[in-house]
Amino acid sequence: MKNSWDKLIQGIREKDIRAMARLITRIENREDGWKTAMTEIYPLTGKARVFGITGSPGAGKSTLTSEIAKELADRGYTIGIIAVDPSSPFSGGALLGDRLRMQQIFTVKEIYIRSMATRGMLGGLCQAARDVIRIMDAFGKDVILIETVGVGQDEIEIVKTADRVMVVCIPGMGDGIQAIKAGVMEIADLYVINKADKPGADEVEADIQAMLSLSSDLEGEVPPVLQTSALKKQGIPELVSALLKNPSDTQKQKVKEEIRIKEEILSLMEREVFRQVRSAWENDGSLQDSVSQVMQKTSDPYTIVKQMLLNHKHR
Amino acid sequence: MKNSWDKLIQGIREKDIRAMARLITRIENREDGWKTAMTEIYPLTGKARVFGITGSPGAGKSTLTSEIAKELADRGYTIGIIAVDPSSPFSGGALLGDRLRMQQIFTVKEIYIRSMATRGMLGGLCQAARDVIRIMDAFGKDVILIETVGVGQDEIEIVKTADRVMVVCIPGMGDGIQAIKAGVMEIADLYVINKADKPGADEVEADIQAMLSLSSDLEGEVPPVLQTSALKKQGIPELVSALLKNPSDTQKQKVKEEIRIKEEILSLMEREVFRQVRSAWENDGSLQDSVSQVMQKTSDPYTIVKQMLLNHKHR
Repeated sequence: MKNSWDKLIQGIREKDIRAMARLITRIENREDGWKTAMTEIYPLTGKARVFGITGSPGAGKSTLTSEIAKELADRGYTIGIIAVDPSSPFSGGALLGDRLRMQQIFTVKEIYIRSMATRGMLGGLCQAARDVIRIMDAFGKDVILIETVGVGQDEIEIVKTADRVMVVCIPGMGDGIQAIKAGVMEIADLYVINKADKPGADEVEADIQAMLSLSSDLEGEVPPVLQTSALKKQGIPELVSALLKNPSDTQKQKVKEEIRIKEEILSLMEREVFRQVRSAWENDGSLQDSVSQVMQKTSDPYTIVKQMLLNHKHR
Repeated sequence: MKNSWDKLIQGIREKDIRAMARLITRIENREDGWKTAMTEIYPLTGKARVFGITGSPGAGKSTLTSEIAKELADRGYTIGIIAVDPSSPFSGGALLGDRLRMQQIFTVKEIYIRSMATRGMLGGLCQAARDVIRIMDAFGKDVILIETVGVGQDEIEIVKTADRVMVVCIPGMGDGIQAIKAGVMEIADLYVINKADKPGADEVEADIQAMLSLSSDLEGEVPPVLQTSALKKQGIPELVSALLKNPSDTQKQKVKEEIRIKEEILSLMEREVFRQVRSAWENDGSLQDSVSQVMQKTSDPYTIVKQMLLNHKHR
């Protein structure tokens, strides 16, 4: 087993795509030894730039992601794409037309695409995304793009693992602006109005600008707002240049990085603690006893947990 | 403080709506003593029937929820509605037209509506929804409807806390059927094709029926598929009758209930253990030290967590 992990890690050092694919699968499945493997991969990381791409379903995120990837490839970068959007064509979740359009970039050697199953990974999806980013980084990808559908809290957490986040809007989304206000604003480093060839793009831009100028949360740089049409390949070079531009406020970047590390440590710790306590309580039968007590209405979940934790401490 | 909790709990015994509203807010905010309060509320619960309503954005879930609530009120039931859909008009997230339409039911005395913030409750949203259901149940609501947007894993978890779950589809959603296949199928007790006055309703019904007949996962009862038009108020009585019909397989219901209790105990426990460990590590500075180590690349998050847990055990 150990041997096999080593072989895969050696494989990514040698830029073997199949080794990377297999490694990602095994890490995602949390196979025995995954944490040790990630510890070995960690020193190989830290070179890639990670961009998050989020927005409502239907905003054209996948097409935009493809176009950004192609532009980056043209500029000589190698790219990894992670799609954690269940409706993404990358994940096989979208209409046939989208999927066909996407396939062009599957054949570009510099671009490696991986979709992540969102099911069965409750809570762990964000950490799994971090791990996949690291594997691609260790492999030597220069830029990693993470596409998520920006609705759930989970998706917002995922996109926060990126260095820079672009929020994709479209003309005519009166609704969307509200959604942005509600949750996405503090994570956006850049706004993109996609499908800007359709009527209403300037109005959305004005709305976003107004929102940004009203916001008291923003310190320093105001996020740029760009218009694109991924389908018509308009505005992509400008967007990519904006993405690649180094943020001027390095202190702010450092603080963001510290927060990211702290959140990762806590989330890894949470899952590990939970796994340990759960298996202890399942093995000694106390979990099943508790369920029976609640079923018989002789206790309730709140009391049960209080008692279980007290017993655990006194052991 | 204790006194004030008691007063609120007494308030819900006396069917004081404002006491219920205040109690929900304090429980949601996890104010000191919330678990004791919930322990006192628990014996008052167990009478309400809880129905989950989920489906893609734009499926008309909120309008459908309103119509179901009105039909139930007409039949003499009292109703609680919980909207955990950030785009729901109940949460203030939708278009003005929807919101105005919704307001009709705000004035029906038997119907109490509560929207839940999805932000800042990562992981805890599902437990908070369980708690709000219990408070409404203890208050004496006969039926509780939970509306969630069925995209994220979080939302699926929430809807699983319901006794019965209806999945709302609409005509012309080739995409939607795929989404159903991917995640929702095992939780659906009932399928509703809303907006059935639009072309394509029969095709979607045929698709769902075909999917159901192919599924090997389904034991016993096959979930019924109903057509409605919430906007035109068609098919609502039939839907409500189907919802209220007692499931014939009581053994299956018991198993589902056991799973629900087990999941709740584990999730309460997880959060509590995490809270304790986190605060211990924050207080003694070891969390901050760890972040610094990772920042300086002298360690990595995986190794840090392993070491921290070992230290914790040996204390």
